[in-house]
Amino acid sequence: MPKAVAGPEIERLIQLLARLPGLGPRSARRAALHLIKKREQLMAPLTDALDTARERIVICKACGNIDTQDPCTVCVDPKRDPSVIVVVADVADLWALERANAVNARYHVLGGTLSPLDGVGPQDLSIDALVSRAHDPAVTEVILALNATVDGQTTAHYITDLLHNANVKVTRLAHGVPVGGELDYLDEGTLSAAMKQRTLI
Amino acid sequence: MPKAVAGPEIERLIQLLARLPGLGPRSARRAALHLIKKREQLMAPLTDALDTARERIVICKACGNIDTQDPCTVCVDPKRDPSVIVVVADVADLWALERANAVNARYHVLGGTLSPLDGVGPQDLSIDALVSRAHDPAVTEVILALNATVDGQTTAHYITDLLHNANVKVTRLAHGVPVGGELDYLDEGTLSAAMKQRTLI
Repeated sequence: MPKAVAGPEIERLIQLLARLPGLGPRSARRAALHLIKKREQLMAPLTDALDTARERIVICKACGNIDTQDPCTVCVDPKRDPSVIVVVADVADLWALERANAVNARYHVLGGTLSPLDGVGPQDLSIDALVSRAHDPAVTEVILALNATVDGQTTAHYITDLLHNANVKVTRLAHGVPVGGELDYLDEGTLSAAMKQRTLI
Repeated sequence: MPKAVAGPEIERLIQLLARLPGLGPRSARRAALHLIKKREQLMAPLTDALDTARERIVICKACGNIDTQDPCTVCVDPKRDPSVIVVVADVADLWALERANAVNARYHVLGGTLSPLDGVGPQDLSIDALVSRAHDPAVTEVILALNATVDGQTTAHYITDLLHNANVKVTRLAHGVPVGGELDYLDEGTLSAAMKQRTLI
């Protein structure tokens, strides 16, 4: 949008919105227009919500989760199994597992996966803290809930090696056919993993 | 995301982001996480930009454009042809035409298109103001730059009828093959319009 049309304030708003994941330049313009049209119903509450979030959100020092309290709600929840740590790359993965109600344990957020090509080494991730948590006698299992990508699996192997001396069982998520998935569309790797790990009905 | 995981502040931010066009619940969560991670680089400037926009943005009383001044930058620009009014449904269309540098004239934003099914009638659009602008003796042409949809074309016909008594030429955008478009993928309506309106090379 040329500057002469809508002024630098709108242009700046569009540029900032375009930096959100999932919004390109075109959808950022649509979002900005929508915000301007819904000034009181949406723009005002969004500004307030951002302000509140900016003030109140903290990172949990124990697990790396994002919350408004430290330690976070998950870490202080007495109903969760204290013997299991679920290792995830990102808070988004933690949220996904919680949405799925997949496990009732505590988490450890690495903050990414090892990626030599992108210059991400072990020192950039929260791995030391994980190893020290895994040495807690109360912990008996570490579940590596990492992406089934090269980087995710590299990270899983690296952590498995590091936890060799800790007295914990290290497990990973099963590979297989996604629920609702059609065999015809699945790659060979998934299909052969699903076949190898077939279960009795 | 269950409330217990991340607190009501984050949940509220996600809900508000999900109301932006182009962001669903999943991408709103990703956007919220991205904002939280880039607190100083993105969340802070975005909050400020929203605040500024909320305070300063006004609707141009002459044409309906969105700007920080009224009349807007386009309406007061002395380099634009004062004899032509380009009628658009929405400010987004105005921006699109300006980005394309398609015309150097003033605009008139209707604020939508006639849509009996959605209960949008002439009184809901800025049509009276357009008719009165079209009766200005300085105006000689009204270009209807409306969507080539049923609603857009209904609106174009309605406005053409109203402008019958005004001393202006009423034109519309050409139909044809989009630049870069492949004939194979075009619908029959577009193809026959492109054929009928073929031009000499």
